[in-house]
Amino acid sequence: MNAPAPIDFWFDFSSPYGYLLAEQIDAVAAQHGRQVRWHPILLGVIFQATGSRPPAEGDSAKARYVAHDFHRSARFLGVPYNPPSRFPLPTQAAARAYYWLHGQDCALARRFAHAVYRAFFVDDRDISAPETVLDIAAGLGIDRAALAAALQTPEVKARLKDECDAALAAGVFGSPHVIIDGEHFFGADRLSQIERWLASGGF
Amino acid sequence: MNAPAPIDFWFDFSSPYGYLLAEQIDAVAAQHGRQVRWHPILLGVIFQATGSRPPAEGDSAKARYVAHDFHRSARFLGVPYNPPSRFPLPTQAAARAYYWLHGQDCALARRFAHAVYRAFFVDDRDISAPETVLDIAAGLGIDRAALAAALQTPEVKARLKDECDAALAAGVFGSPHVIIDGEHFFGADRLSQIERWLASGGF
Repeated sequence: MNAPAPIDFWFDFSSPYGYLLAEQIDAVAAQHGRQVRWHPILLGVIFQATGSRPPAEGDSAKARYVAHDFHRSARFLGVPYNPPSRFPLPTQAAARAYYWLHGQDCALARRFAHAVYRAFFVDDRDISAPETVLDIAAGLGIDRAALAAALQTPEVKARLKDECDAALAAGVFGSPHVIIDGEHFFGADRLSQIERWLASGGF
Repeated sequence: MNAPAPIDFWFDFSSPYGYLLAEQIDAVAAQHGRQVRWHPILLGVIFQATGSRPPAEGDSAKARYVAHDFHRSARFLGVPYNPPSRFPLPTQAAARAYYWLHGQDCALARRFAHAVYRAFFVDDRDISAPETVLDIAAGLGIDRAALAAALQTPEVKARLKDECDAALAAGVFGSPHVIIDGEHFFGADRLSQIERWLASGGF
């Protein structure tokens, strides 16, 4: 028998709901014998290409609600969360570092991704700064100089661009966006539908 | 002891996620000894005043996803759903009829609201037409001529306007929007958070 196809998990490191789902998705998939392929992408690129927008902008009633909902949804899921003082942030450095690491050691890349998300959404660190990304990597025993050099290479930059293109080609329009056997699930709040889909093979 | 305050449920009769929550909210509230006050409003007025927008517009990847998600979320919740052929629709007549009925008989108004939602999202009827609204009401034994006359009165028109103003004053920016003791929940997918909030008095 062939193993079931992996689940694709598209996210931006600056996406709070992406963080919430990142804390859950591997365990949920594993309960159903599935692996997850993580794909950090840049929401700015996705929004530009699709015309989609963030859940709320500016100082509106909806924007205040969404900020409150990030926090409440984290409590609901039992995930630690402290609202970052700078938000959103550009995430090129973190995403490029992820793909370079993934080429060396997938499991280490996964630990790095979790560490980046927690640095931003728990410890309020400025993950847009390449120095912060290198510090996070070094804390996991990754060669800081080798990563710093890799972040400058055309190959690593092209890989992130290719992933954003692949996301758009797959129909991704936001973060988090999960695709299971061609079925799309947008938002951390689709976790319960994802669980039933995996358990039932559709509903 | 005082009874706990009722829950406020704001919705537009043209909102699919409003329909999904309408099929659940009374039972969930009742399990926790709560009543629900239903408030049909006009999303056009809310969007105009708040700058909020519908979940997706036009023929984008997100719009196609949202249409698919309406249907899948209905199956997930066990609610019958057939995508209406005309969508969205203006809902002044249905909302005004609701408020007039509510002044006569709250329970009948609730049955009427369910019937309007099902007429639109199950039977694909054009609920924007006053004649359809009158037909739905007549099917529940409501005096058709009295309702037809009521829909033309300044009092009924003013009541709907007042409800939209009250929604805006309360911070409502979309549909469905639930407020429990000052806590806001936006979207049918917040039902599980609503349930935990009612069970725990917050989390």
